[in-house]
Amino acid sequence: MKLTQNAAKRLVPTEINGEKQIPFMGVGKYKPDGKISAPKIKSCADYPEDGNKIVKSLKEALKKSGLKDGMTISTHHHLRNGDLIANQIFDIAHSMGIKNLRWFPSASFPCHSRLIKYLEDGTINRIEGSMNGPLGKFTTEGKMKGVGILRSHGGRYQAIQDGEVHVDIAVIAAPTSDPFGNSNGVQGKSACGGIGFALADSEYADKVIVVTDNLVPFPCVPWQIQGNNVDYVVEVDSLGDPAKIVSGTTEITKSPDRLLIAEHIAEFMDAAGIVKDGFSFQAGAGGTSLAFIPFLKEIMKARGIKARFVRGGSTKYLVEMLEEGLIDYILDGQTFDLDGVRSMRDNGNHVMTSPFTSYNYHGKGNFASIIDAAILGATEVDVNFNANVVSHSDGYLLHGIGGWQNCLFSKCTILAIPSFRDRIPVIVDEVTTLCGPGELIDVIVTERGIAINPKRKDLLSAVKNSKLPIRSIKEIQKEVNEICGGAPQKPSIDKNKVVAIVKWVDGTVIDSVFKINL
Amino acid sequence: MKLTQNAAKRLVPTEINGEKQIPFMGVGKYKPDGKISAPKIKSCADYPEDGNKIVKSLKEALKKSGLKDGMTISTHHHLRNGDLIANQIFDIAHSMGIKNLRWFPSASFPCHSRLIKYLEDGTINRIEGSMNGPLGKFTTEGKMKGVGILRSHGGRYQAIQDGEVHVDIAVIAAPTSDPFGNSNGVQGKSACGGIGFALADSEYADKVIVVTDNLVPFPCVPWQIQGNNVDYVVEVDSLGDPAKIVSGTTEITKSPDRLLIAEHIAEFMDAAGIVKDGFSFQAGAGGTSLAFIPFLKEIMKARGIKARFVRGGSTKYLVEMLEEGLIDYILDGQTFDLDGVRSMRDNGNHVMTSPFTSYNYHGKGNFASIIDAAILGATEVDVNFNANVVSHSDGYLLHGIGGWQNCLFSKCTILAIPSFRDRIPVIVDEVTTLCGPGELIDVIVTERGIAINPKRKDLLSAVKNSKLPIRSIKEIQKEVNEICGGAPQKPSIDKNKVVAIVKWVDGTVIDSVFKINL
Repeated sequence: MKLTQNAAKRLVPTEINGEKQIPFMGVGKYKPDGKISAPKIKSCADYPEDGNKIVKSLKEALKKSGLKDGMTISTHHHLRNGDLIANQIFDIAHSMGIKNLRWFPSASFPCHSRLIKYLEDGTINRIEGSMNGPLGKFTTEGKMKGVGILRSHGGRYQAIQDGEVHVDIAVIAAPTSDPFGNSNGVQGKSACGGIGFALADSEYADKVIVVTDNLVPFPCVPWQIQGNNVDYVVEVDSLGDPAKIVSGTTEITKSPDRLLIAEHIAEFMDAAGIVKDGFSFQAGAGGTSLAFIPFLKEIMKARGIKARFVRGGSTKYLVEMLEEGLIDYILDGQTFDLDGVRSMRDNGNHVMTSPFTSYNYHGKGNFASIIDAAILGATEVDVNFNANVVSHSDGYLLHGIGGWQNCLFSKCTILAIPSFRDRIPVIVDEVTTLCGPGELIDVIVTERGIAINPKRKDLLSAVKNSKLPIRSIKEIQKEVNEICGGAPQKPSIDKNKVVAIVKWVDGTVIDSVFKINL
Repeated sequence: MKLTQNAAKRLVPTEINGEKQIPFMGVGKYKPDGKISAPKIKSCADYPEDGNKIVKSLKEALKKSGLKDGMTISTHHHLRNGDLIANQIFDIAHSMGIKNLRWFPSASFPCHSRLIKYLEDGTINRIEGSMNGPLGKFTTEGKMKGVGILRSHGGRYQAIQDGEVHVDIAVIAAPTSDPFGNSNGVQGKSACGGIGFALADSEYADKVIVVTDNLVPFPCVPWQIQGNNVDYVVEVDSLGDPAKIVSGTTEITKSPDRLLIAEHIAEFMDAAGIVKDGFSFQAGAGGTSLAFIPFLKEIMKARGIKARFVRGGSTKYLVEMLEEGLIDYILDGQTFDLDGVRSMRDNGNHVMTSPFTSYNYHGKGNFASIIDAAILGATEVDVNFNANVVSHSDGYLLHGIGGWQNCLFSKCTILAIPSFRDRIPVIVDEVTTLCGPGELIDVIVTERGIAINPKRKDLLSAVKNSKLPIRSIKEIQKEVNEICGGAPQKPSIDKNKVVAIVKWVDGTVIDSVFKINL
């Protein structure tokens, strides 16, 4: 495998899985010049006039879709760790003796660790999609036949749209559907909120199968997936385990250190002048991100400030703010708890968005860069503010990118990180895997202080007279290294064996993940 | 111009405006084998990071869009006869000395008759889109330089999607928009209801300009047009004349003959077993279609029947049924009065649809064929149930097709027609212009009786024992011809000079409109 140094000085392959790759050129530097993917023209004459696309089983739908060796099969993580459908697809493929499939999930979860046997026996060649937990470990140990590809949510849309990834068969697990294939995720016993991660697949895949456990008469309203893009509908008893699909409630961290980080973030945003009428922010569902919300809310209430919109991951904390009139709109990409699902279902101001509207870098703009502040996590940050979100300092790939890269385009990107985890420092000289260039990361908030990217003179100046613990990133790093007994040990890796690559939002390759030496 | 006989035995050109044409092959017979239109890949790097796409005038937006000779400019008829924007576009083009434009409106109205001067001076080469009133007259008299092309709403979507028509610049008049270009038609002083006719243009045009007279802060919710497809946003004082954009109220016909037709339709649907729990129907905004609704409602109330959905053109009559719980959903393509606009804005069960979901024949099915009964009008019907909806018996092209052809795919298509108009019989031996093949038209309801297509033995049998005035179409024709003093005179036309063609829903040519000899 030939490796080359990209604009971020990371070694990346120029070709993997038989496909040429473009090395990262810098933020906004790569200009695509092709045309988007063009599906075949269909005809209503080939579809049932009465709109009834029901077939009796997932197996039949896969057979009718022409499932064969080497195809690309996509699934989505709307059902999170409660999903039963992705495993069934590959059970069926295996029973049919199909080999060499590319699995293209929007994310994989520990519930999919059962697919390791199909990665071993050649039913599945590789995973392109985030590999949380066991599948990531399997990959890092060099056991996957093909090379994995990690993309952000926006990058996944971009890859399908641009024809980088041609999906042969998309299987969309939909909590509610009608026989025509109009589907949503806000109704039914498996309700999960939005199902927008399947949008690109529904638009561009050759064959689209909707699987539902709540079949309703036409029309299914609202339709988050349009039946006009669907080939077959399959009714099953259960899509998954509701308790694992959405948590009943999301919980704020109880860790004093993380609560301190959360409080610092809210105070920083206020001091920097971000918290003002009509502002916007994005907060995820991690414990620290959640914890920041009540602190922010306090400031907003005290000063009579209203936000124009908030981007979710939605949780009960954001829903409460919406219902209390502190924010006009939630623009939601993913719904994390039952309050979020209820709100998206019942409140017109809680709007489902998609990776197209929010994150696609190859569109005429997207929502991510309009946001005033995004609060994100990271596994590592280096002294130049470059960050990692997929691997740990031990070299193991254990997390997906989600919308993380896309959110970096906000007007103020804040990483909320503990200064160390399990006595391993989080601020390093060089990140194990580069996921986000430092030029897009503005602020690092730790329990030991707040580091502002020196490029952001405006922010440095804005908070200059505040009582916030503003420090240089190297100063925090030094302190933490002393506490932890030094910088993290470099993992022992095989620099000749790339097991996965990380794409930037424009489809170029920003970094490689290498095989761990066992 | 070479003419050939198509499968409906109509003479159609094999090439017009320098583009090859496929003659109509029969319903469902033409199978497209190409790929859909593929726009160029864009990059967020080329759009403002803060999402603000406002430019100071329509002229500036057109210049930035690269307006030049020979381009295709699209507009939409959401503002109906109150539209001010389409005229402005061509005023600007004329002032810039631009020539030979193709105007591609979803429909034109009498308010656009001012554009005749630009058709005369070569600013506009031709209109592809319905030509209601004066522009139709101008065209039929052979005065337009290019040949007109009439398409149904679904056919317009299909033509853009399939790349038959490449739109260079789409101008979308949007009653509400944010600076990013997210737009809707349900808010603002020019609120018109849905703006779904612009969907295809927004998706496939090279440049998309949104013009609004109600600019709101991001995000404009709901967005019926996605800002991610928009290049420029222009704020103007007024999009048009609100009184002409939507009528305050739509009115039911007072004509006793038409009321009788309306009553017959409701009784027929009941007798034929169509009116049952969970059924669906589509009714337009014509006086007779409207008048049918109260009769149907009476039957539904008397028998405790609820419809699952109704397709609009929505009006206060449908809105009342929705609000009274007689129908679960209105799936609305076009909103005809203020009650319709209010309902679409405030009621989640009044859903905006688009020509893609409802009518596109080159999709994986569409809504039109799922509907139990569609009630439509016609200018002429022949004794084989073939129908005309664009021209009169005098040969003049005076109406657009709208969704008419698309609706023919309903399970029971009913044409509501007076047996004569201005003493001219409506049932003829051969229609002046063929728009809909008789095999798709099931029932003709006139004030002199109901004629059922002999192909529909099931319907004939279902109503056999009813008291309905079922008659043969020829019997009604004969009676009417006697009253009117004979069949309509054939117009004097130039069979060598095609002034416009009518496309079928699949993009093939179903008929020609010929120049009138003046």
